[in-house]
Amino acid sequence: MRRAITLAARGLGSTSPNPVVGCVVLDATGESVGEGWHQRAGGPHAEVHALRAAGERARGGTALVTLEPCNHTGRTGPCAQALIDAGIARVVYAVGDPNPTATGGAQTLRAAGIPVEQGLLETEAAEVNAAWLTSVRLGRPHVTWKYAATLDGRIAAADGTSRWITSAEARADVHRLRAECDAVVVGSGTQRADDPHLAVRGIEGAVQPLRVVVDTNGTAVPPDARVLDDAAPTLIAVADDATPAYDTENTVRLPRAEGGLDIRTLLDVLHARGVRSVLLEGGPTLAGAFVAAGAVDRVVGYLAPVLLGAGPAALTGGGITTITEALRLDVSETVRIGPDLRITATLVAKEH
Amino acid sequence: MRRAITLAARGLGSTSPNPVVGCVVLDATGESVGEGWHQRAGGPHAEVHALRAAGERARGGTALVTLEPCNHTGRTGPCAQALIDAGIARVVYAVGDPNPTATGGAQTLRAAGIPVEQGLLETEAAEVNAAWLTSVRLGRPHVTWKYAATLDGRIAAADGTSRWITSAEARADVHRLRAECDAVVVGSGTQRADDPHLAVRGIEGAVQPLRVVVDTNGTAVPPDARVLDDAAPTLIAVADDATPAYDTENTVRLPRAEGGLDIRTLLDVLHARGVRSVLLEGGPTLAGAFVAAGAVDRVVGYLAPVLLGAGPAALTGGGITTITEALRLDVSETVRIGPDLRITATLVAKEH
Ligand SMILES: NC(=O)c1ccc[n+]([C@@H]2O[C@H](COP(=O)([O-])OP(=O)(O)OC[C@H]3O[C@@H](n4cnc5c(N)ncnc54)[C@H](OP(=O)(O)O)[C@@H]3O)[C@@H](O)[C@H]2O)c1
Ligand SMILES: NC(=O)c1ccc[n+]([C@@H]2O[C@H](COP(=O)([O-])OP(=O)(O)OC[C@H]3O[C@@H](n4cnc5c(N)ncnc54)[C@H](OP(=O)(O)O)[C@@H]3O)[C@@H](O)[C@H]2O)c1
Repeated sequence: MRRAITLAARGLGSTSPNPVVGCVVLDATGESVGEGWHQRAGGPHAEVHALRAAGERARGGTALVTLEPCNHTGRTGPCAQALIDAGIARVVYAVGDPNPTATGGAQTLRAAGIPVEQGLLETEAAEVNAAWLTSVRLGRPHVTWKYAATLDGRIAAADGTSRWITSAEARADVHRLRAECDAVVVGSGTQRADDPHLAVRGIEGAVQPLRVVVDTNGTAVPPDARVLDDAAPTLIAVADDATPAYDTENTVRLPRAEGGLDIRTLLDVLHARGVRSVLLEGGPTLAGAFVAAGAVDRVVGYLAPVLLGAGPAALTGGGITTITEALRLDVSETVRIGPDLRITATLVAKEH
Repeated sequence: MRRAITLAARGLGSTSPNPVVGCVVLDATGESVGEGWHQRAGGPHAEVHALRAAGERARGGTALVTLEPCNHTGRTGPCAQALIDAGIARVVYAVGDPNPTATGGAQTLRAAGIPVEQGLLETEAAEVNAAWLTSVRLGRPHVTWKYAATLDGRIAAADGTSRWITSAEARADVHRLRAECDAVVVGSGTQRADDPHLAVRGIEGAVQPLRVVVDTNGTAVPPDARVLDDAAPTLIAVADDATPAYDTENTVRLPRAEGGLDIRTLLDVLHARGVRSVLLEGGPTLAGAFVAAGAVDRVVGYLAPVLLGAGPAALTGGGITTITEALRLDVSETVRIGPDLRITATLVAKEH
């Protein structure tokens, strides 16, 4: 199953609106004879890939799958039926499918007389699918807020200079994060200050994310902005009543809210477009608005071992005024990235 | 040698103005027959402890010492001579003694025909003695700035509330840091806001640090302040021209400088009193003054996985206005302490 989870992770960033899934097929003697993962929406499911690789040797064998095999006939046939047809004798899956249109695969298998077990490495398998599971549960994309700051929480010096706060290694790692997400979001402040590109570079085979600029008045994205090149699709969110100076082909109109545009509606719009995971790349003001909207599920902080003592903070606003209201997370990982640290923390779930 | 370094570390906080030293004596067959460490200033050196434990079995054996054996007759006899007298056949030490009054031990040993090797695990052994080595090199105590903050670099919420930003485990860990240092320093702002105790609690056998309050006008420490109890000695630094409202028995007078008192002079005064390591416990303003004075050698940050989006920053002032002036450090350790992270970073040495 650990291998199946590793396989599943390969699909991150290219399967939305579907989950990532990995599958390993063992023959009757327990030897691994086929591997597969769901590679892209519309393509074959993990089980189909693994069964194809296993061929006749799947008969009498075991299928290990990270997610409950699907039961519905979507763009590809139901996997439960494919497993039955291949003569699989036992199915072990990690996480139950919470998606009402796909659920029931285990039942179908059992009805066909195939023993089914659930729960093996469930936590690890749920983690690799965190974005998709969150989007099913909450009906909006999973949001990762990424920031880069000094040890004392600054994103720039007092005079605004910020080049190379974090290392080249950390900046390269951000491309991996982007590649794993369906959309990358920045505010008009960052757009104006940095003219960011936001596409994935240096990762072979990566599916480019949708680049999103939250620009209430439609004034922050000049015609020669780097986000408007053809490296990746782009969406500019503007207010209902805005009269953007530029081409409106890539714009979407949203209601105004305190501070700018309504974040919940933005997420609804992205969800409707198949976006299941968002990488919020800042800046601090827009991140504060996401915090206030209760729309930060995970935080990835790149911390440089640098002290500044002055300069803008990584997060501003968010509406928290007293310590008991603080947003509490769990640290899930700490890794050195070159000279810097990458700290990943996930929201302590309140909905359970 | 690794064992000798572990032994040396036991002396942290109780040997100043001496270094910490550990020693392992092997007999002629290579078996460990004696261990020792320097336990407190004025007490026997590590080698003497280890030789005593080894007794006659030291004859023809090897002594592994973290620091070059001393050559001078201070309060205890010279260790080089003690090793010769015990019939040790070979001496291996990690770090050369930079102290002009103690150096020459290796020479004395060689003159007595004993082969001497230097450099084994030198980096590790230098690290355990970082405070003492810095104090010899710079003529001032080694300074560790400790802070506790949220992931976004805040030490309190917007309304000033800060209780339990970090966990009970992190707070307990601070007592270990205090026990390893000779003095603990806070500013008048922290004194007024928190009435801190600053003594070590819960660590058996710990030597209490000198508690220091930097209180320019002598107005921040009321007679019933917790730092004035008898749990540990206390020093209140006030300006030359201040007329402190309280008892002056524990006060020292310092020249004024920008922002308050002169930090360099404060460190000189502490050094003259035998203090070799200082734990600067804040707050952000005094920490900024230490940064501006070039007097932060190590940073220990306790980061809670919490977001606030508003509230005071961990470090303010320090005189850094642009990114190229930023204080750059190396991360030397990252450890989970309960739900929090402890990040240790050391100044990238410029003096070498
Ligand atoms: N180190 C890092 O990780 C990092 C990452 C990103 C950016 N940055 C830095 O951050 C700085 C820019 O930060 P910033 O805070 O000014 O810009 P920002 O967060 O990128 O954008 C803020 C702007 O977004 C618009 N917005 C739209 N809807 C909003 C809502 N609901 N709530 C709040 N804002 C909304 C507002 O302007 P309109 O309403 O006028 O559109 C607002 O001023 C730059 O210097 C950049 O380099 C650093
Ligand atoms: N989370 C943490 O790690 C942590 C640690 C400590 C404190 N805190 C919090 O920090 C807050 C207090 O911070 P703070 O910044 O106001 O106080 P502070 O840094 O403790 O003290 C600052 C004061 O020290 C005096 N001082 C003397 N010499 C100085 C010099 N050379 N440069 C600068 N100041 C000098 C100044 O007042 P005078 O000249 O009038 O004496 C100055 O206002 C409290 O809320 C406390 O809870 C948090």
